[in-house]
Amino acid sequence: MDDALQQLTALVARLPGLGPRSARRVVLHLMKNRETVLQPLLAALKRVDASLVDCSVCGNLDTADPCRICTDPKRDPALLCVVADVADLWALERGRLFAGRFHVLGGSLSALDGVGPDDLSVDALKARVADGVTEVVLAMNATLEGQTTAHFVAEALAGAGARVTQLAHGVPVGGELDYLDEGTLAQALRLRRPV
Amino acid sequence: MDDALQQLTALVARLPGLGPRSARRVVLHLMKNRETVLQPLLAALKRVDASLVDCSVCGNLDTADPCRICTDPKRDPALLCVVADVADLWALERGRLFAGRFHVLGGSLSALDGVGPDDLSVDALKARVADGVTEVVLAMNATLEGQTTAHFVAEALAGAGARVTQLAHGVPVGGELDYLDEGTLAQALRLRRPV
Repeated sequence: MDDALQQLTALVARLPGLGPRSARRVVLHLMKNRETVLQPLLAALKRVDASLVDCSVCGNLDTADPCRICTDPKRDPALLCVVADVADLWALERGRLFAGRFHVLGGSLSALDGVGPDDLSVDALKARVADGVTEVVLAMNATLEGQTTAHFVAEALAGAGARVTQLAHGVPVGGELDYLDEGTLAQALRLRRPV
Repeated sequence: MDDALQQLTALVARLPGLGPRSARRVVLHLMKNRETVLQPLLAALKRVDASLVDCSVCGNLDTADPCRICTDPKRDPALLCVVADVADLWALERGRLFAGRFHVLGGSLSALDGVGPDDLSVDALKARVADGVTEVVLAMNATLEGQTTAHFVAEALAGAGARVTQLAHGVPVGGELDYLDEGTLAQALRLRRPV
């Protein structure tokens, strides 16, 4: 394989979810479809690299700073949803599920990945909460790291004057009991509600 | 999600082996690592797009035309290995397994994918074989499409004066009989050799 191709394949192979084999397939696909795939991808990467910035208020990725969510007058500034990652913000925004604003922590606490309290934007969050926020919704993954992070943020916000809530646990919509893990079933049972 | 990001995600999601979810992960990884991942990837894509050409002799991808395999004086010009795709050529070249030259057909016959005899570079192959080739090794996948293609090429080369051979079938090195399919076992048994 040519040097330039080898270098490109090595870079693609290091992307999350890809490996040497799938990288070769991707590179070959790019080479076979230059006008229809490679060149549009090049243009899109260039555009994103040139135009996207981190929002200095919430940490979202956008072409504007502050981002369009932070400056949207229709969103309730007293309601703040804390997420670990921009991907989680995207997940909530796909369904337009939240009428307030967001705060991206920049990760989850994880000794394994070397992410400590100082790596998360908790001070910025505290400053925002002190500025008239009445409710903070912690929207973390229901994993060990996510829940550790949620507890840590909740503690950091104690006494800040805002109500701190978190996403409900339970049976996912469409979920079949037979296929659910015991942890989810235990939570769903413990948090049972009147019909 | 921003327009530019959405467009990039859609392009990444259409690459082989990726989907909307993994594309979002890749794009987020690119955005989080601009200097170390996004920009090197951009540069590598640009370089490949600007410098790589299809070899007009064998169909390999290289910065030179004819490619470095076709012009390598250490390779036997009388020995030709026919592969469906550049990826197969790469697989054989990774182990430097073949001392002759290659011919890339450009695909496998497949009614499902709409690949017919006219889509394969068989005429160019015939012309090369007529020019002093003594053995043609058919290195096709051991799939229905691969074997159909091998039969088709073998027929097209009948009377061309070269010996036509194909890769051996059998138990792969390290393979455990208990995990092999019946087809492989049947072939391995049928083609058994004296110890």
